[in-house]
Amino acid sequence: MPEPVAFIDEKFVPASEAKVSILEPTFTKSDVVYDTLSATDRLIFRLDDHLDRFQNSCDAMAIKPPYERDELKGIIAECIDRSGYDDACATMMGTRGPYNDISSRDPRDCQNGLIVVAVPYYYVMPKDKRDSGINISVVDNRRVSADAVDARVKNFNWMDLTRGLLEAYGKGGDSAMLCTSDGKLSEGPGFNVWISKNGRLLTPRGNLLEGMTRRSIFELAAEIGVEAIESDLYPDDLRGADEAFSTTTAGAVTPITQVDSKPLGNGAPGIMTTQLSDRYWSRRKEGWHGTLVDDLLVKEPAGSA
Amino acid sequence: MPEPVAFIDEKFVPASEAKVSILEPTFTKSDVVYDTLSATDRLIFRLDDHLDRFQNSCDAMAIKPPYERDELKGIIAECIDRSGYDDACATMMGTRGPYNDISSRDPRDCQNGLIVVAVPYYYVMPKDKRDSGINISVVDNRRVSADAVDARVKNFNWMDLTRGLLEAYGKGGDSAMLCTSDGKLSEGPGFNVWISKNGRLLTPRGNLLEGMTRRSIFELAAEIGVEAIESDLYPDDLRGADEAFSTTTAGAVTPITQVDSKPLGNGAPGIMTTQLSDRYWSRRKEGWHGTLVDDLLVKEPAGSA
Repeated sequence: MPEPVAFIDEKFVPASEAKVSILEPTFTKSDVVYDTLSATDRLIFRLDDHLDRFQNSCDAMAIKPPYERDELKGIIAECIDRSGYDDACATMMGTRGPYNDISSRDPRDCQNGLIVVAVPYYYVMPKDKRDSGINISVVDNRRVSADAVDARVKNFNWMDLTRGLLEAYGKGGDSAMLCTSDGKLSEGPGFNVWISKNGRLLTPRGNLLEGMTRRSIFELAAEIGVEAIESDLYPDDLRGADEAFSTTTAGAVTPITQVDSKPLGNGAPGIMTTQLSDRYWSRRKEGWHGTLVDDLLVKEPAGSA
Repeated sequence: MPEPVAFIDEKFVPASEAKVSILEPTFTKSDVVYDTLSATDRLIFRLDDHLDRFQNSCDAMAIKPPYERDELKGIIAECIDRSGYDDACATMMGTRGPYNDISSRDPRDCQNGLIVVAVPYYYVMPKDKRDSGINISVVDNRRVSADAVDARVKNFNWMDLTRGLLEAYGKGGDSAMLCTSDGKLSEGPGFNVWISKNGRLLTPRGNLLEGMTRRSIFELAAEIGVEAIESDLYPDDLRGADEAFSTTTAGAVTPITQVDSKPLGNGAPGIMTTQLSDRYWSRRKEGWHGTLVDDLLVKEPAGSA
């Protein structure tokens, strides 16, 4: 039976057994960077793009997981393969690891590590919400600003996002839209946001994670001849949009049909939203930006069997 | 032989065995609040103050560890007692815990937990630095602002502090001083900062954790007839101070004798700094704000032996 599989401490184990010490800064200082990719039909989407971003995140925090890029590819593929899921999300984490000296608090003096885990492909939003569209609340809690934590360095410092999510739930929303301290749209808990206005696609710029699905939307928009640009956007741009949707690896394109519990446009998923969502999945099925898990699995040397 | 002891999943275990699942938002969203207290000669310092702050942190994140206050006191005392350390630091953590449904990403639908761990009393700075004073670098990386994450809700979202620390090391500093986005002094990685100027004590206000040692300095200053106030302070206030020091539970008062690698005052620990440090420790020895571990240990009912 399929089961989530993790690679930790240089071994493959059931993910339920993969744990981090409460004494490590990996946990006590959330000193860890990560990236999450997805595979459908054993085709990993944008593998090298995710690995490039993961490397950037590691570099930004001076974390050096003890594996080369090709080894990491093999480990990711093996986690997915061993898990038994054809459709999976896999997360790679570069950890600060334990201090070499128990009395030290110096992040330069740690054994950096690598954790990878494969789980079934999942959606941030439940099925009924994905069909009907979600109600997003613009919350008061601000997104951490880039001069403190660079959101492009993908990290688990989610307190602002969790606080935003709890605030949104309190207002009746399905999820939250966080703004920067100066009031510009930033991102939600785990997703980028897009609006369509007068036939153009717009997405916030700056102070956010530049998602891989976001990047894919720029490409898909070009394929269908729609202009897509980054821009400084404000809550009223979202509220006054013709259509809106969120993008995330775990869920792809999700229509936003209400903002602050008020219908957006006609209150149904938009035509451009649906077109982009369909195209995203059909292109992936064709192998777009795809790498087969089986092409990455480390083969036994000939004659070793 | 003394050994760190943890309480996790309702059991006392060697701290080295205490681990958190990589599948829990406790880890993947650093969705956990904490507090750290210290005991010297089995006397816990400001126990109720720490528990009040911990409760505030839990409330702010809607985390409900499944223990009453008196139970928590007993668990803390037992961790310290079982560890065998007369001088200890104990950390309590309220965890978001695992999702009740593996496909959920709803923080309201989790099994909140409690972790407590006792370790030997430690100092953020090594001994030679505590004697000579530390060199603190005012770094460019900003402290997360309170409209995104309230630092008074004590948390592991340390990425800004870790980045600041790495920046300070790169500049030759022993630790970092982070400022707010608008350039005011905030705090360092795990400590508050104080300056003395013309016989008065000043410490930054707002956008920082209001430390227990910081609170104690207000009280000690009053005892010796020195005015101590919170104020908006800037890097040049630190650079132009007569004396400066840091305060933290894990290390108490540490002289700051250089800022940006330039000597502060005469470059030696200041007289007021030394007076406050000595008084802090002598008052603690007298039992000031102290609660005996032995008074908290859950006694066997009479006749049960």
